[in-house]
Amino acid sequence: MYNGRILTMEDNREIFSGEVWINNSEIERVICYATNKKEDTKESFDREIDLQENLLMPGFKNAHAHAPMTFLRSYADDLPLQQWLFEKVFPMEAKLLPEDMKWLSKLAIMEYVTSGITSSFEMYLNLDMLAQAAMETGFRMVLCGPINSQFGTAKEAVEQLKKWYECYNERDSLVSMHLGFHAEYTTPKEMLYEIAKLARDKKAPVYTHNSETEKEVLECKERYHLSPTKYLNSIGMFEYGGGGFHCNYLDEEDMDIFKEKKLYVVTNPASNMKLASGIAPITRLLEKGVKVAIGTDGPASNNCLDMFREMFLVTGLQKLVTKKADAMNSYDVLKMATVGSAEAMRLSNCKTIAKGQKADLIIIDLKQPNMQPLHNIEKNIVYSGSKQNVILTMVNGNILYEKGEFFIGVDKEEVYKKANEIANRCKL
Amino acid sequence: MYNGRILTMEDNREIFSGEVWINNSEIERVICYATNKKEDTKESFDREIDLQENLLMPGFKNAHAHAPMTFLRSYADDLPLQQWLFEKVFPMEAKLLPEDMKWLSKLAIMEYVTSGITSSFEMYLNLDMLAQAAMETGFRMVLCGPINSQFGTAKEAVEQLKKWYECYNERDSLVSMHLGFHAEYTTPKEMLYEIAKLARDKKAPVYTHNSETEKEVLECKERYHLSPTKYLNSIGMFEYGGGGFHCNYLDEEDMDIFKEKKLYVVTNPASNMKLASGIAPITRLLEKGVKVAIGTDGPASNNCLDMFREMFLVTGLQKLVTKKADAMNSYDVLKMATVGSAEAMRLSNCKTIAKGQKADLIIIDLKQPNMQPLHNIEKNIVYSGSKQNVILTMVNGNILYEKGEFFIGVDKEEVYKKANEIANRCKL
Repeated sequence: MYNGRILTMEDNREIFSGEVWINNSEIERVICYATNKKEDTKESFDREIDLQENLLMPGFKNAHAHAPMTFLRSYADDLPLQQWLFEKVFPMEAKLLPEDMKWLSKLAIMEYVTSGITSSFEMYLNLDMLAQAAMETGFRMVLCGPINSQFGTAKEAVEQLKKWYECYNERDSLVSMHLGFHAEYTTPKEMLYEIAKLARDKKAPVYTHNSETEKEVLECKERYHLSPTKYLNSIGMFEYGGGGFHCNYLDEEDMDIFKEKKLYVVTNPASNMKLASGIAPITRLLEKGVKVAIGTDGPASNNCLDMFREMFLVTGLQKLVTKKADAMNSYDVLKMATVGSAEAMRLSNCKTIAKGQKADLIIIDLKQPNMQPLHNIEKNIVYSGSKQNVILTMVNGNILYEKGEFFIGVDKEEVYKKANEIANRCKL
Repeated sequence: MYNGRILTMEDNREIFSGEVWINNSEIERVICYATNKKEDTKESFDREIDLQENLLMPGFKNAHAHAPMTFLRSYADDLPLQQWLFEKVFPMEAKLLPEDMKWLSKLAIMEYVTSGITSSFEMYLNLDMLAQAAMETGFRMVLCGPINSQFGTAKEAVEQLKKWYECYNERDSLVSMHLGFHAEYTTPKEMLYEIAKLARDKKAPVYTHNSETEKEVLECKERYHLSPTKYLNSIGMFEYGGGGFHCNYLDEEDMDIFKEKKLYVVTNPASNMKLASGIAPITRLLEKGVKVAIGTDGPASNNCLDMFREMFLVTGLQKLVTKKADAMNSYDVLKMATVGSAEAMRLSNCKTIAKGQKADLIIIDLKQPNMQPLHNIEKNIVYSGSKQNVILTMVNGNILYEKGEFFIGVDKEEVYKKANEIANRCKL
């Protein structure tokens, strides 16, 4: 890919004119024209892409999602949270068949790639179906343990978790996995102890929904006289790090634990707005040195899987709540959506454009009116960027999306047909 | 345009399968296949568009904007409000030449049509240049009087306002105009009196920035012992209606005046977030029966001109501040962005899809993953819709944008080149 503007997302490296060579799944060479003169190469490539001075950058990483929930999009909106969850989401989810989850995940993957998302961190009931969707489409997915009281006894549930964990981390593949559980409030005490023990055995990080709502925090305090973060930390859950999804209601001590245990906060601003849950204290977290990543959450609550929307909201909401127009610098947000999320997902080889990193890349069309003039391309992406600017999305060296077309091993019409069939069958 | 799903935005009319015929600038016929059998017509058309079961709906109306401010996009972000305004915006604007404003407006118009916006309500220094941009590109524009202390004496300024008003309302054209002034805090008392008098003479509505920030309201109270709304009403400004842009800090009495005088609130949620100004009390306004429209504000503060972003924010922010996930129904938001904004701009012939209405229409691609499944298309548009879904934008019966291409009488590369030149020349 030549004749482009390259944004590597490496520290202190500005956008430069240059090209990037890809060999199989990896970046083989990054050439800056200012220091390496552009020359006719003798190398032969399968394909050469003229970037036409558009931007090549690392793909976005969606650090929290529930891909199969696409079937609930726009079915249960504008409802109070409890009614939404107990009268719509849970009864409809109960009707899903395993195969459904694969189709619905493929629909989500299609949406991801239209938004320049090259990998996602997924929690859902049946991880095998998600993994299959990822492998069949060529998308990079990190699975997150979803267990809670629905998975049987503590022993049974953690046995399942361990089985998945060993299965999906055994080989170099598009799919990897981290330990996790749904949330403190849905997981029995004995199960939490068993998970903490497994995490210490495996020396592994643990991820979970944490302090999404005020109610959740209050109820945990009633049960254990501790906030979710303090309680989980007290039972040795985070000896090898991990993270929390949402984290809208962390107090100063909770944040200190996040800092000390190197836990990531994964913020989901659109979902938290739409369900009226709250706003994560990102500005304060960054002041304290806590690392932050960004996720879309599932399409039942967001309802779209669009990293551009999330980036704008991360900065906009912080400006609003702190009443400071200079709060939450946009470059830091861009870093969260790429490097930060990759680190939270432990995708250390998918962070930047550099030799040896995986070729998980996107091309951003700068020749759209929302990207003009070209004062500051990074700010343009965060403040005025849109899915419309994504020309191409490449995962592991393969193009999955280019100029509106999908290359994911299945016809888009077939995915839509299946998704509508499933949605209609699950209707209440 | 046949074989489509038609969303007319008329009251109590659901989406139906059908077609729409256009004759010159107007809608000639709306056919619902359920009641009028699809038949081979003997009519001959210049062009027939197969909608392929995608959605045809009225275009969005952007009820508050400053089109030429495109040159400031991403130049002055992440700064405190006062520094942003006085150290960046004003000094750079002072360097603009009239011709610049035309080019910069064309860039904004391009961005509008990519987002399905078919008309805008524009306040800026030189209205003639905006009008020219609209007429040359074929875009529908409503001008708003921009006067303030920069326009000379009260008499001179109001003379200019009157001249514009008479010039742009004399004929049926793409461009019309309403009386207006920048804001209470930038307009001398004598000038406000003269404007109010002119409004009564012309029996015309008046529009202005109103209660955008807390500071603005406090300072007005110091000056006149009244809020901006109460003060302006007290001098007879709103005898024939009009509206306020932003309106983040209205008290109950202000809202009562809005209701009584049939004033429109034009909300600009993205801009108000980014500048940390606040959130308009939309839920309360609707409870009281005040009419609401939606605008993007200018690209220096937003930074993009995307009605999909605004619609999501209108509902999302209300859910967040009221702590109710069922606040601010999405259909009402869609109505605001189309019919509501058209009414605020007094474009009574651009509201719906119906015989005799202007052909200001858009086609929404439903065959994108973010629009699937098709549970509820209206909700999909508000919650997961994106500029990416806009296939075609038609204004006054002419296609200005189709499948990524612009048909606005000028090459896009030329507009970008000019915009970058102007931006570089105005840099500080």
